[in-house]
Amino acid sequence: MDDVAAMHPTKQRLIEAGLRLLLERGYNDLGIQALLAATGTPRGSFYHHFTDKEDFALQVIDAYMVEVHAGLDSCLTDLARTPFARVRHFFELTEQKYREEGYMGCLIGGLGQELSGVSEVFRRRISACLSAIAGRIAICLEEARQIGEIPAACDVRLLADLWVDCWEGAALRSRLTRSPTSLKAMLDFYVRAVAHEPPVGNAG
Amino acid sequence: MDDVAAMHPTKQRLIEAGLRLLLERGYNDLGIQALLAATGTPRGSFYHHFTDKEDFALQVIDAYMVEVHAGLDSCLTDLARTPFARVRHFFELTEQKYREEGYMGCLIGGLGQELSGVSEVFRRRISACLSAIAGRIAICLEEARQIGEIPAACDVRLLADLWVDCWEGAALRSRLTRSPTSLKAMLDFYVRAVAHEPPVGNAG
Repeated sequence: MDDVAAMHPTKQRLIEAGLRLLLERGYNDLGIQALLAATGTPRGSFYHHFTDKEDFALQVIDAYMVEVHAGLDSCLTDLARTPFARVRHFFELTEQKYREEGYMGCLIGGLGQELSGVSEVFRRRISACLSAIAGRIAICLEEARQIGEIPAACDVRLLADLWVDCWEGAALRSRLTRSPTSLKAMLDFYVRAVAHEPPVGNAG
Repeated sequence: MDDVAAMHPTKQRLIEAGLRLLLERGYNDLGIQALLAATGTPRGSFYHHFTDKEDFALQVIDAYMVEVHAGLDSCLTDLARTPFARVRHFFELTEQKYREEGYMGCLIGGLGQELSGVSEVFRRRISACLSAIAGRIAICLEEARQIGEIPAACDVRLLADLWVDCWEGAALRSRLTRSPTSLKAMLDFYVRAVAHEPPVGNAG
């Protein structure tokens, strides 16, 4: 999992186009020919860097996850915020990223939906990606639990998986509506629930 | 939006295969030729009933929504349960359906992810489907609110949209893991949050 910036320029260009095109079009609707045309890459160069389309998409997923983990690194170690607020901030920054992309949702959520019914390779890979994200969030939630920021009896791994899952659903809705409403509502609902505050819309 | 049972037998066979195949493979990976082969249908018969593949998929979505609305009709009018419990029961029955299908997730969530980046037709249609489901749930939540089953200050439409969105995310995770864990965890978390009970895993 190399940083995209450290790659051969041709590979970098292809991966960056892949991040954009796979998010927009999904896997099966993306033709290698269209990718080559969009990036001005000769066919031979593509096959120098990637075995085939599946290998390309898996490397795009790797590059996406490098970005996600960099975001987690930066947010979850931000000692200016409390542990629970660090996780919330990570999702807020993710929402900003979605906004810059025109609210197209989450790349791995999209590929997971599209491909996990027919490909064990993608099903396992994307399942592992979501699990890895939840695992890192759980560590931060454990810190929140230990300092009393969230209730002591919370199952932090369960709460971390829930956070990721509910976020993915809100991301789908934001892709359908091209708006942040579902993302903001989900974060607010989740944070209130874990803090054991009254549910959204409740003035009391 | 006819009931599948009331359709011409050939159309019925195609729609039923479409419900299964689009859930499993998505839209772009499904070839008309494979559909015809799987159902023993001559090409001409397909084009007698459907303009093209897009028309076919839209009619499959219609058939899916007829099922969903029938499930809502039956659950949300079940006076043996309280209003809030009726909605929960609808999702529990949906989980049973997913189990019978091998946890392949939600057809409209899957097609929404796959197609809404490139097709305004599918984006609007699937957005409207989720909105219609949330609208019916909101009516039942309003009943729950009025009898004091959920806090009086709840914004029922917001809560209904949240329920649908979080469910879709849990459905994606269940498709990735082929298990009900995420669905059960999400329902439990959501119900506790709205009832203003301590979050999941909290013994207190």
